[in-house]
Amino acid sequence: MAEQLLREDFLYSQIADRLATQIEKGILKAGDRLISLRALSKEQGISLSTAFKAYVELENKGVIEARPKSGYFVRFSPLNAPERLPSIAAGPVIEKSNVEEMIRTVYKTMTHERIIRLSVAAPSAELIPEAKLNKAMIEALRKSPHSCTQYEAVQGNPALRKQIAKYAFNWKGNVSEDDVITTQGCMEALIFCLKAVTEPGDTVAIENPIYFGIFNIMKSLGLKVLEIPCHPDDGADLEYLQDALETVPVKAVLFVPNFSNPTGALMPDHRKKQLVEMLAERQIPLIEDDIYGEMYFGKTRPGTCKSYDKNGLVMLCGSVSKTLAPGYRVGWCLPGRFKDKVLSIKIMHTVSSATPTQAAVANFFETGRYDLHMRHLRRALHTQCLRYVQAISDYFPPDTRLVRPQGGYVLWIEMNKNVNAFELFESAIQESISIAPGQIFSSHARFSNYIRISFGAPYNSVIDNGLKRLGELIRRQYS
Amino acid sequence: MAEQLLREDFLYSQIADRLATQIEKGILKAGDRLISLRALSKEQGISLSTAFKAYVELENKGVIEARPKSGYFVRFSPLNAPERLPSIAAGPVIEKSNVEEMIRTVYKTMTHERIIRLSVAAPSAELIPEAKLNKAMIEALRKSPHSCTQYEAVQGNPALRKQIAKYAFNWKGNVSEDDVITTQGCMEALIFCLKAVTEPGDTVAIENPIYFGIFNIMKSLGLKVLEIPCHPDDGADLEYLQDALETVPVKAVLFVPNFSNPTGALMPDHRKKQLVEMLAERQIPLIEDDIYGEMYFGKTRPGTCKSYDKNGLVMLCGSVSKTLAPGYRVGWCLPGRFKDKVLSIKIMHTVSSATPTQAAVANFFETGRYDLHMRHLRRALHTQCLRYVQAISDYFPPDTRLVRPQGGYVLWIEMNKNVNAFELFESAIQESISIAPGQIFSSHARFSNYIRISFGAPYNSVIDNGLKRLGELIRRQYS
Repeated sequence: MAEQLLREDFLYSQIADRLATQIEKGILKAGDRLISLRALSKEQGISLSTAFKAYVELENKGVIEARPKSGYFVRFSPLNAPERLPSIAAGPVIEKSNVEEMIRTVYKTMTHERIIRLSVAAPSAELIPEAKLNKAMIEALRKSPHSCTQYEAVQGNPALRKQIAKYAFNWKGNVSEDDVITTQGCMEALIFCLKAVTEPGDTVAIENPIYFGIFNIMKSLGLKVLEIPCHPDDGADLEYLQDALETVPVKAVLFVPNFSNPTGALMPDHRKKQLVEMLAERQIPLIEDDIYGEMYFGKTRPGTCKSYDKNGLVMLCGSVSKTLAPGYRVGWCLPGRFKDKVLSIKIMHTVSSATPTQAAVANFFETGRYDLHMRHLRRALHTQCLRYVQAISDYFPPDTRLVRPQGGYVLWIEMNKNVNAFELFESAIQESISIAPGQIFSSHARFSNYIRISFGAPYNSVIDNGLKRLGELIRRQYS
Repeated sequence: MAEQLLREDFLYSQIADRLATQIEKGILKAGDRLISLRALSKEQGISLSTAFKAYVELENKGVIEARPKSGYFVRFSPLNAPERLPSIAAGPVIEKSNVEEMIRTVYKTMTHERIIRLSVAAPSAELIPEAKLNKAMIEALRKSPHSCTQYEAVQGNPALRKQIAKYAFNWKGNVSEDDVITTQGCMEALIFCLKAVTEPGDTVAIENPIYFGIFNIMKSLGLKVLEIPCHPDDGADLEYLQDALETVPVKAVLFVPNFSNPTGALMPDHRKKQLVEMLAERQIPLIEDDIYGEMYFGKTRPGTCKSYDKNGLVMLCGSVSKTLAPGYRVGWCLPGRFKDKVLSIKIMHTVSSATPTQAAVANFFETGRYDLHMRHLRRALHTQCLRYVQAISDYFPPDTRLVRPQGGYVLWIEMNKNVNAFELFESAIQESISIAPGQIFSSHARFSNYIRISFGAPYNSVIDNGLKRLGELIRRQYS
């Protein structure tokens, strides 16, 4: 018995080691699926439980991971790419007009055809269930009153609002359809919420770095921004915020606690609670941009600040632009105690939202197609994330630093201090590779040696070549 | 020969007189179709040319009218309801907050089910070709790249922009698809255009009375308004505007030259030209809200200010909300020299517009379905307009004044000075009749003895009873 145990022990360790070597050598790559336990047992002539122990050992080392109902996958090569955290802020302050010019330049090239698009933080077309969505649209048009041609109630399509309220259960939300207002995408939701709680001239706290669209909104609404450092691992620096609140008259806070853009940071749930309580003390509204919350790679959906909100001060905003169909422009907000205010702003701005797209999305939810699609999408994204990280660790210079995100679409990459990201962008675009330079994610063009790379497109040889070439361009910049 | 001519002369006059009597007595009502020339000739045993002469005589008197490819229709009963022009402005100035309160009250009741909705200036569901529109949506989804799921270019759906440019031919516009930016309905187009040419605190000239949504926009954008009297027959008072421009620093003008809301006024094309030239001299941008321009009852579409624009100063805005599908929220603007500015505002606000609804509308245009639908809709609306006018002249007190509009959806009705329109609204809503009281169409609740009645719903016994009851409620107010 003891001997048998010893032999088994030896066996599973041996097998685990062999697999680890294959992964280190790149024979098995990040995202690759391992053969099933049954197949392994058969192939190696070992018991099922020995095969299981071998995988558990690799799992405990963080080399592979089990995914529910899918089997085991290579997670990451631990030797090639140890996790190195990018630091928070860096780089010289440059002129604001240059930042805007940069954003325009980056944006122009983003939508260009035939480009290796590493700059768009959204699912690529291959990941969208187009045919099923068309079916949902046809069903929705046939079932809806007057085929969705008439003005709907200001608050938005009732069927969609019901589904959004139902899905709030996943983030421990206790909301009803009456708490939901639909919008034309998440940007419009953010704008309506900001307009509801601020006046021009007010100050709003935001993360730094942050998606450049947020700066444009602030500028357009005549708002000042207070930039709160955002750590790539656990998000906005709450201690920094706490200190700032003592001296700066902050009118509202706009954060992206789940998989912030560009850092990919995930604020742990206990920090979310802490944030909500800190702001409630001062009666400061929190606009929570949860557009990436559904794109988690872990076992459960991360929570939201909204779920800790006892005062109606948290205004959660979301959309299907990152999960289902950017082109549908279907978004929403749960504006808490500011609902009436948001409704008047909406009626002024748009009278009501487009009904067909909302009804189609509602149908897609109702029929269970959404659940199925999301399981598939999350798996695909996780694999893509690991593949991209692997390639970066293979191709980029060894002083490259990044955090492996736990969800979302993007990698926030710190390069050598001598690299200028915008110059890198310019030389990359010459070779039809589109990246987002770090400078466009802060008001003063900080992060000049950072780039954001999106892993929204399935990994293939074109992407592989693009990342390889990018690595060469980085090296060329400072060698 | 002479005798035969005399006899014919006698005959057609006799027949014309008989028909006129039938119309006066209400046996033939406004909007009724007359029998065809061939049928009349057969029925009365007269020649085709005699029948033709009889109809021409009635047409010259303004009693009936020929509609292309449709035959002859009763236009109006000339004895019962002579045209009486409502005067320009009237009523005491009341508190602003009351106006907002009134608007909210009116709006709340508008969308209520089971109400006789005389307050919504849009086509009722019966007039919308739902099945054909669904077909257009399905075709569009199948033909479009990625079934319309991906972000489209900021400027909007290319197929739709092409169709809008093509239809501009009807108003003598010489524009290309590159001049068009699509939006979420016309309100968003107006907001983007206003934001492009004004800063908070600037003054914008608008018509008085005007659709209350325009006030909300101005307030939201922090703009001051200069109200220019709008005559129910020929629109904004250009001489008044000219004088005002000498003293007030007007930053932009926003007019509805074709079938203004609520007056239904149509600015003649030569006045449009005059307006464009007057503003060009001072380099003042004109935002032209042309949302009702396609709803003409005459033989040709009225022109636009845009067609006289030589300096890129006219920003034309439109949508399909009044012609095809309010629930689709498909609108556009042709912002002339301010195109880049409008594009940056659009990208900031919405990234891009919803693609499926735009693609469906484009398909509806391309396949010729739109032309067919519009011919039908214009005929139906014209008939409805005449029916409503007839009923008002039958049921309302004799001192009621209105202008028969040449297009659009609404009747602007002046009542006895002792009638308070908002009180009338309140008593009407008790009986499930929804009207728009005059007070909500100016910044200081003027027009307190006016109401706006929409003829968007097909005439039937419910509408007939509603108007009859409304006439009684008016009488009760000052007798």
